Amino acid sequence: MSNRAESVLVGLIGEGVMPSLTPPMHEREADVQGLRLLYRPIDLLQLALPATAVGDLLIAAQRMGYNGLNITHPCKQLVLKHLDEISDDAARLGAVNTVLIRDDRLIGHNTDFSGFGSALADGLPGAKLDRVVQLGAGGAGSAVAYALLTAGVSTLDLVDMDPARAAERASELGALFPEATVTPRSTTELSHIMDLADGLVHCTPVGMAAHPGLPLDIDLLQPRHWVADIVYRPIETQLVREARAKGCEVLDGGRMAVGQAADAFQLITGREADRERMRAHFLELIAKEEEAPQLAKAGN
Amino acid sequence: MSNRAESVLVGLIGEGVMPSLTPPMHEREADVQGLRLLYRPIDLLQLALPATAVGDLLIAAQRMGYNGLNITHPCKQLVLKHLDEISDDAARLGAVNTVLIRDDRLIGHNTDFSGFGSALADGLPGAKLDRVVQLGAGGAGSAVAYALLTAGVSTLDLVDMDPARAAERASELGALFPEATVTPRSTTELSHIMDLADGLVHCTPVGMAAHPGLPLDIDLLQPRHWVADIVYRPIETQLVREARAKGCEVLDGGRMAVGQAADAFQLITGREADRERMRAHFLELIAKEEEAPQLAKAGN
Repeated sequence: MSNRAESVLVGLIGEGVMPSLTPPMHEREADVQGLRLLYRPIDLLQLALPATAVGDLLIAAQRMGYNGLNITHPCKQLVLKHLDEISDDAARLGAVNTVLIRDDRLIGHNTDFSGFGSALADGLPGAKLDRVVQLGAGGAGSAVAYALLTAGVSTLDLVDMDPARAAERASELGALFPEATVTPRSTTELSHIMDLADGLVHCTPVGMAAHPGLPLDIDLLQPRHWVADIVYRPIETQLVREARAKGCEVLDGGRMAVGQAADAFQLITGREADRERMRAHFLELIAKEEEAPQLAKAGN
Repeated sequence: MSNRAESVLVGLIGEGVMPSLTPPMHEREADVQGLRLLYRPIDLLQLALPATAVGDLLIAAQRMGYNGLNITHPCKQLVLKHLDEISDDAARLGAVNTVLIRDDRLIGHNTDFSGFGSALADGLPGAKLDRVVQLGAGGAGSAVAYALLTAGVSTLDLVDMDPARAAERASELGALFPEATVTPRSTTELSHIMDLADGLVHCTPVGMAAHPGLPLDIDLLQPRHWVADIVYRPIETQLVREARAKGCEVLDGGRMAVGQAADAFQLITGREADRERMRAHFLELIAKEEEAPQLAKAGN
């Protein structure tokens, strides 16, 4: 018991998680704080387990002395039914990315949304948040939209390649935030809605090393827009680079990656995380990868 | 994968293992060496699991990124059938206390015997080993007897409260070491066999905090005898104290506890352990417990 209290064991369950930067981020922050912490990626692909094995892995984690877990694709929804307790926000979002193991109880949280929220507050302080265009309404997009509406966005325009998905998300989010207006939009409406927007948030894979390019016509960006990307491999996406060149205020994807990690660190260890220190370390790790790109085969 | 190579996750599976000093011994030695290591006690009693669950726990350990395990009572035999490979000595002994997890293979070793062997060499260098009396032929006693015979003892007299157990062990060990003479003896023969012996090894629970006292008539000890105890809570048992007072050379139980831990550390981490440093730390831990005895409820 005394041993457990003095050290922290954390895991990340999902597919293709070996290259994740979350483990070294947690470990380094713990090192600086003098806390013994070990963070293991637990890769379903490497274990040849289906996503539905997440329930068994939670039991294994409990038995093997884990204090907490991060959960990622494709288990963020599947994990819900195996938990004893779920935070209000994670329950509303219907997605859990952090599980605390406390006296044999499994408690779910979502730091994707809270991490984006703190990234926005830290990285774009004072940004006007009345009206926002969001590209991408998948899993990460749902958490980001939830964060935007929690942060006070009153009009959110949701654009997705899949109009049905945009419509479904808009309707779910509208029900959760009845005082906000959440509207599914098609790409043909982008020119119009960007004219009305304060900022743009990008939540599709476009701009990742494997999907280079821009997610929208760059001429739609005006210097008065702020731009937030959640892609962080590379850290300087084409969108980030061109938006900066236009004079836009920009939030790179690293802020959300660090935000979710810092919030999970705090929940799991019960200690404050120094976000600027974690960001500095994250940028170091990304820079190392960009020098030796074969190390980074997947994102998380 | 890169994360795994840089850190080591170890567990101890058994009943009542929470107060074990093996976890802090490994962690401290790793700290000094700049290696990230976390060592979790995994207590079957706390988990309300039967000893036969050891196979499931090995699978859980593999999945959850463990690099190695120590195995203790009551699983040292039960674990055998779940392993992919067993060292020659552990197979001969029929008991495994250390499991390496290497590329999904489970490899069993026994550092109880090797740890006692190195304890003997370190703590009683040059001791005459021709003829030895051993009290206690249980699990720990088997490993100790195996170590004594490996170290060159040619005549081993085995005494146990249970004559059938002494006879069975003597016969097993005799078959493994055909050039040695291993004889089961009753307590009534102690006076005679102590007269012939170079040293005495004690492997029963007598002398532990919960079983105070002496395991034999102290008048049978002569200053020319060396005495090895494997009880280490307290570190100075009545046997150790009275043997020292008689002028005997003495090996306290801490040497074997440190020896098994140092050998397991080396097998699991692939790094040399500094035995004197580990012993110094062990003595610190024991001294702390003896100041606050409620912390140490069980031994291991």
